[in-house]
Amino acid sequence: MVQTASDIARIVGGELIGDASEPVKGVSSLDEAKEGELSFVTEEYYRKNKVINTRASVLIVPKGFPPLEGKTLIAVDDPMEAVIKVLHLFVDGDYGSGISPYAVVSPSAKLGENVVLREFVVVEDGAVIEDDAVVMPFCYIGKNAVVGKGSILFPHVVVYRDCVIGKKCVIHAGAVIGADGFGYIEVEGRRVKIPQIGRVVIEDNVEVGANTCIDRATLGSTRVGEGTKLDNLVQIGHNVKIGRNTVIAGQTGIAGSVKVGDGVMMGGQVGVADHVKIGDRVMIAAKSGVTGNLKDGEVVIGSPAMPVSVWKRIYGAMKKLPEIYAFFRKLKAKGLGND
Amino acid sequence: MVQTASDIARIVGGELIGDASEPVKGVSSLDEAKEGELSFVTEEYYRKNKVINTRASVLIVPKGFPPLEGKTLIAVDDPMEAVIKVLHLFVDGDYGSGISPYAVVSPSAKLGENVVLREFVVVEDGAVIEDDAVVMPFCYIGKNAVVGKGSILFPHVVVYRDCVIGKKCVIHAGAVIGADGFGYIEVEGRRVKIPQIGRVVIEDNVEVGANTCIDRATLGSTRVGEGTKLDNLVQIGHNVKIGRNTVIAGQTGIAGSVKVGDGVMMGGQVGVADHVKIGDRVMIAAKSGVTGNLKDGEVVIGSPAMPVSVWKRIYGAMKKLPEIYAFFRKLKAKGLGND
Amino acid sequence: MVQTASDIARIVGGELIGDASEPVKGVSSLDEAKEGELSFVTEEYYRKNKVINTRASVLIVPKGFPPLEGKTLIAVDDPMEAVIKVLHLFVDGDYGSGISPYAVVSPSAKLGENVVLREFVVVEDGAVIEDDAVVMPFCYIGKNAVVGKGSILFPHVVVYRDCVIGKKCVIHAGAVIGADGFGYIEVEGRRVKIPQIGRVVIEDNVEVGANTCIDRATLGSTRVGEGTKLDNLVQIGHNVKIGRNTVIAGQTGIAGSVKVGDGVMMGGQVGVADHVKIGDRVMIAAKSGVTGNLKDGEVVIGSPAMPVSVWKRIYGAMKKLPEIYAFFRKLKAKGLGND
Repeated sequence: MVQTASDIARIVGGELIGDASEPVKGVSSLDEAKEGELSFVTEEYYRKNKVINTRASVLIVPKGFPPLEGKTLIAVDDPMEAVIKVLHLFVDGDYGSGISPYAVVSPSAKLGENVVLREFVVVEDGAVIEDDAVVMPFCYIGKNAVVGKGSILFPHVVVYRDCVIGKKCVIHAGAVIGADGFGYIEVEGRRVKIPQIGRVVIEDNVEVGANTCIDRATLGSTRVGEGTKLDNLVQIGHNVKIGRNTVIAGQTGIAGSVKVGDGVMMGGQVGVADHVKIGDRVMIAAKSGVTGNLKDGEVVIGSPAMPVSVWKRIYGAMKKLPEIYAFFRKLKAKGLGND
Repeated sequence: MVQTASDIARIVGGELIGDASEPVKGVSSLDEAKEGELSFVTEEYYRKNKVINTRASVLIVPKGFPPLEGKTLIAVDDPMEAVIKVLHLFVDGDYGSGISPYAVVSPSAKLGENVVLREFVVVEDGAVIEDDAVVMPFCYIGKNAVVGKGSILFPHVVVYRDCVIGKKCVIHAGAVIGADGFGYIEVEGRRVKIPQIGRVVIEDNVEVGANTCIDRATLGSTRVGEGTKLDNLVQIGHNVKIGRNTVIAGQTGIAGSVKVGDGVMMGGQVGVADHVKIGDRVMIAAKSGVTGNLKDGEVVIGSPAMPVSVWKRIYGAMKKLPEIYAFFRKLKAKGLGND
Repeated sequence: MVQTASDIARIVGGELIGDASEPVKGVSSLDEAKEGELSFVTEEYYRKNKVINTRASVLIVPKGFPPLEGKTLIAVDDPMEAVIKVLHLFVDGDYGSGISPYAVVSPSAKLGENVVLREFVVVEDGAVIEDDAVVMPFCYIGKNAVVGKGSILFPHVVVYRDCVIGKKCVIHAGAVIGADGFGYIEVEGRRVKIPQIGRVVIEDNVEVGANTCIDRATLGSTRVGEGTKLDNLVQIGHNVKIGRNTVIAGQTGIAGSVKVGDGVMMGGQVGVADHVKIGDRVMIAAKSGVTGNLKDGEVVIGSPAMPVSVWKRIYGAMKKLPEIYAFFRKLKAKGLGND
């Protein structure tokens, strides 16, 4: 699909400087763009780099940006926001159509209007696939599970029985929704499994990363709130409740029965111990280990996690430790501290 | 399936207080239970919360529990143990039956009695699926691999060639059994692959979590002992030997050739360095990094991991570090420690 | 395939001591080898263990090794290198042949000579599978994606649209190449997705571990350099560039836009913060958290990561902290440091 610079300027509400008829064949980063493509420069990038070196023919730039020899510029208030609008034009949203003859769908499953079920999809008894949902090859939709309106499941997603995926969700390849929670009781040195008869409920507009696992509840529901985004290889334990518009980065693990608030941000490789309660708008630095409850708005780091201000003082002093230790030995040698 | 309160009381050997004919339509947690469902109260929960607020109609409670207005109670010695018995009644163990016409099974594979092979399963030459095993859609059973009697493989499990899964195992979706160990030698700056011709042996009654990876041995076997439970997204390196009734939580990684004893407990996100030996009944706190051998019964934490008692003293002092550092600077300024 | 000891001696260029006609039915580790199999002893193993206890009939040993009662020995300069040659003889490289009638291949896809597409493979429009490539069951090759000459994709690999896999690559089961990068902007408390229209380019001779995820770039390419090896459950963020012959162990996570040099070695469970630049031949210990740029050849450990020499001094003093703290309290009690 080819647009012109003036089409793009109109779409992003920007001011066009240069050749309005310049075709835009694609969008790329400054260093990887080819001639005929569009790229963009943020205020921050320009402040740091000054010189713009790119083969891109069309650039989205902040207002007030100086003219660039041979480039067509589109000046806007917020280049990042504008480029997102442009990106949407170049996303290929064609995932096929209709029900593949190679899909196996239980006669008791309910399919909405305009559903896409690609090759080698299995839909079990009583499952519901709502209107406009796209289910890519090799997805498994368990008994009585629900895939909400307009959601897309990339290849190899597994939705165990009774689990619910809301509307307009994006579930990436290999994600496993609803495997058994890790629950055992010890009986004479052996681990006896606690049957996990609960489910997972994923609310609307949630994105789940590739190979991420969300365990079903022992009883009741494991829940991921509306608008929340989970990155790849994240582990969500049984009975966890995650609020709305929370963001959790890759390889983070949340143990059983944890409660996470709204608007929380967790970095990658964070661990949260079971039964911990995390308030709204908490920020947790990457690799932190959260072992206790956190109040609304807390910002923590470290393992065990502590407020950033406390951690900075401890970490600052830690770097002086070899010096402190040498001093300690000197004083000790002098007999200080002797009774 | 609807049971009555008196059916349940009989099954768990409990004392019924209230309406024996009360139907039990399901089991849920106290806060998520609906009318007509059963829930339970443990001693510990009651001690902490005093007030029981639930819509559940039937409650399993500890002996000596006070009567509750409008609820049917079933009093037992150990509510947790009783509820597990009840949960088993509500697990839906119907995974389909027979060999799907959409399964592709090598003529040289051996299938036992009463085996379930669901749609789009691939079973390669010489593989063995023992009696009563259930293989869910999209599982791949490699050449000469074995799936033991009564085991269940959830969708998308991959068993590479020659690997053996014991009896009554549960392998969750996306688990990969027998991918190549991560072994290379460096030759002139390049990594040359060491062919991995060993296998994986999983003994009986093992549970493997979703998207967990267990690598095949370079030579011989990577082994997971009888009754051991692995959570999701766990990584087991080549030639690792794990003992019996050991429990390993999510996202833990065990490097090559490690030996782990019986009855060990590891928290989540633990890392164990290669060739380390871990004794029986060792407990390793979440996020620990184990770099040396551990004796039977040791309890460790931290990275590098150390005995909990040592860690507590160090960690306690670490919190005082800013204060110690301020004192150090004061003494230094006074000229103490000068020669 | 049965070889004799003299065949093996010839192949590895070793000196045969003992029965030249001894058949070699397999290769295994010293402790797991059965009669009729070959095993090996390295200098290092012999130095540590002295006594060689094995049922193996044939042993590859270092030159100058003493004779062993009843064993056939093959003496070489480097047993490890020799055994790798032998292992190659015992790798079963038969992955089937031809295009399965159960594969679904778009008429616009291009298939090279001698390609293997196994059961239930999906190849989308415009995808290219080059000569001699092997695509195992349940792999998904997205629109316009490329699988290079001689590469093998184990079962359940997902290659999203436009992504490129080079020649002679090995991609293990469940790996996800090209899922969306984790990019959102916050608009009034909600996360708005930045469409990810870039791709992943994996160069030649790369190995990707099981269930590892490599995200597509927002714009341009996420890139994994020639000869690089990634272990299982690794997370590579969007727009990351990894150099050549780099080795990254299991469960390591690399956040967006990181640059990693050539010949780098990262242990397991390492985390690298976004936009960090890591030079060539850097070594990063397991579990480290890298938050800043690293120069060529640096060796770091810890979280935050620091040079090993610095870390050793700090860590050494940290173990003395309880003692330092006790001393501090004693001096304080004596009134030292008072004004």
